[in-house]
Amino acid sequence: MAATARTITRSAQPFNLDAFVTRCTSDVNAALDHFLPSEKVKPATIHKAMRYSLFAGGKRMRPALVLAAAHACGGATGPALPLACAVECIHTYSLIHDDLPAMDNDDFRRGKPTNHKVFGEGMAVLAGDALLTQAFEVAAQCQGWPRYSHQRIILELAQASGSLQLVAGQVADLEGEGKKLTVPELRYIHERKTSALLCCSVRLGGMSANCTPRQLEALTDFGYHVGLAFQVIDDILDITQTSEQLGKTAGKDIAAQKATYPAIVGLEKSRKIATQLTTKAFAALKPFKGRATALEALANYLLKRDR
Amino acid sequence: MAATARTITRSAQPFNLDAFVTRCTSDVNAALDHFLPSEKVKPATIHKAMRYSLFAGGKRMRPALVLAAAHACGGATGPALPLACAVECIHTYSLIHDDLPAMDNDDFRRGKPTNHKVFGEGMAVLAGDALLTQAFEVAAQCQGWPRYSHQRIILELAQASGSLQLVAGQVADLEGEGKKLTVPELRYIHERKTSALLCCSVRLGGMSANCTPRQLEALTDFGYHVGLAFQVIDDILDITQTSEQLGKTAGKDIAAQKATYPAIVGLEKSRKIATQLTTKAFAALKPFKGRATALEALANYLLKRDR
Repeated sequence: MAATARTITRSAQPFNLDAFVTRCTSDVNAALDHFLPSEKVKPATIHKAMRYSLFAGGKRMRPALVLAAAHACGGATGPALPLACAVECIHTYSLIHDDLPAMDNDDFRRGKPTNHKVFGEGMAVLAGDALLTQAFEVAAQCQGWPRYSHQRIILELAQASGSLQLVAGQVADLEGEGKKLTVPELRYIHERKTSALLCCSVRLGGMSANCTPRQLEALTDFGYHVGLAFQVIDDILDITQTSEQLGKTAGKDIAAQKATYPAIVGLEKSRKIATQLTTKAFAALKPFKGRATALEALANYLLKRDR
Repeated sequence: MAATARTITRSAQPFNLDAFVTRCTSDVNAALDHFLPSEKVKPATIHKAMRYSLFAGGKRMRPALVLAAAHACGGATGPALPLACAVECIHTYSLIHDDLPAMDNDDFRRGKPTNHKVFGEGMAVLAGDALLTQAFEVAAQCQGWPRYSHQRIILELAQASGSLQLVAGQVADLEGEGKKLTVPELRYIHERKTSALLCCSVRLGGMSANCTPRQLEALTDFGYHVGLAFQVIDDILDITQTSEQLGKTAGKDIAAQKATYPAIVGLEKSRKIATQLTTKAFAALKPFKGRATALEALANYLLKRDR
């Protein structure tokens, strides 16, 4: 995330987002390094390939949402970390597979050559597979609660990542190329491709803090809207920013004839929709009565980001 | 498995393996059909692709091992079924990805065109991803015990399938092509590519029956040796059988310059090794005192199979 100091003052006390994100990234990176086999462990190639993409300088937005949600529910970072790492493993696997020639065929990601460009297609498929598997191994190492058992947490993660959610979004995205989609059809894709895992992130954060059912409901509502806003912004940035600014190939959506909000309703209306969705996300945080400052700041950042 | 009646009489009472396997297959197929979204569920293509490979007429050997191990420990089929389905999902995902052009580039599997030949490469990658994810969703629906919690069961499945075991085997297999390997190097591949998931299958079966630590140890020993024997036989069949007999491309190992037991030590010695490994597997079953008839019969079948 941007290195400039950014404070928002919606809540009583100002919140330093940069400090929060820096701390988050440092904690999550240390935990990921702890959970993943080192590059020296045999077979070295697969661990190099997994770590190459996992430590390629991602924004760690999903882990930050996990930790922020845990804090909003009165929880600590420690118990939330395995779940923060698990969603980041899922996210990274999905990017590696999505970048493959048979899918989006992308050569750059986060300003670096994509996994298959460095390690070859076969190894990139395996690195994605291994990270997806690792996600469940890491998630299973979380602390359970009577209300949020390991069984429930694994089901939560698997369902958000499976054929009805994350994978469904990729499928619909792939099948939608070159077709003229309606806004509801596009929203169907966004809900699954992006919103499902973001929503799962805040829910898992809440669960790690043994949140109340009412808090979980509020987090679900928040995650759903932030996820949709995030994807609308992503579509906008694909048009308005350069490849250098994004660290990945810009203008890909138009080249691949992908349906996007800007393509269907125009840039101005898309920006309006993203703002409206973020407003709904803010409204969902009401039950936290000012204790969800990190979540608020993250939603605000995601709306205003430029990469 | 072969339809001919086959009984073995190592134990006190004869055991009808065909009846056991037929019953297993029927139970596992019904359970898989129950756990997986139907082909009508949106996005239909992914569920068609997942089911295409899952119901392509596989031998259901791993599920049979799960159920047989559960029975050996005094357990019933019901509690073992989610775990039997989970290992079959893992096995099927690994075949779909292994058959991809970037990996083994195989056009036929179980006598039918491979997944990517029917659904395209992108969809085949996603179908594998979805099946891998589904495995954890299904496994999490098993019944836990104080000794074998959901946490422990998920860790078991994830570790057997991850970058140190199943994926490691694929990686080493891929990297070993065209190289002259030693017997220990080849065994390293077999232990991971095949033995890990077979061993995990019998262990999970035992866990579903709340087995004793001593039983679990015996199952581990059995699964390890049966897994190694299975892969040696697979290598032999690749040379001695036709593509029609195998339902997949025969002679692939030689074409891909893969190291195999027959290539390193010859056919005769390979057959001897497979028999020795199976004998060790039988010996591991001693603590069950005649209650592991199904496991014995399966090990015997796997040694003598012709496809």
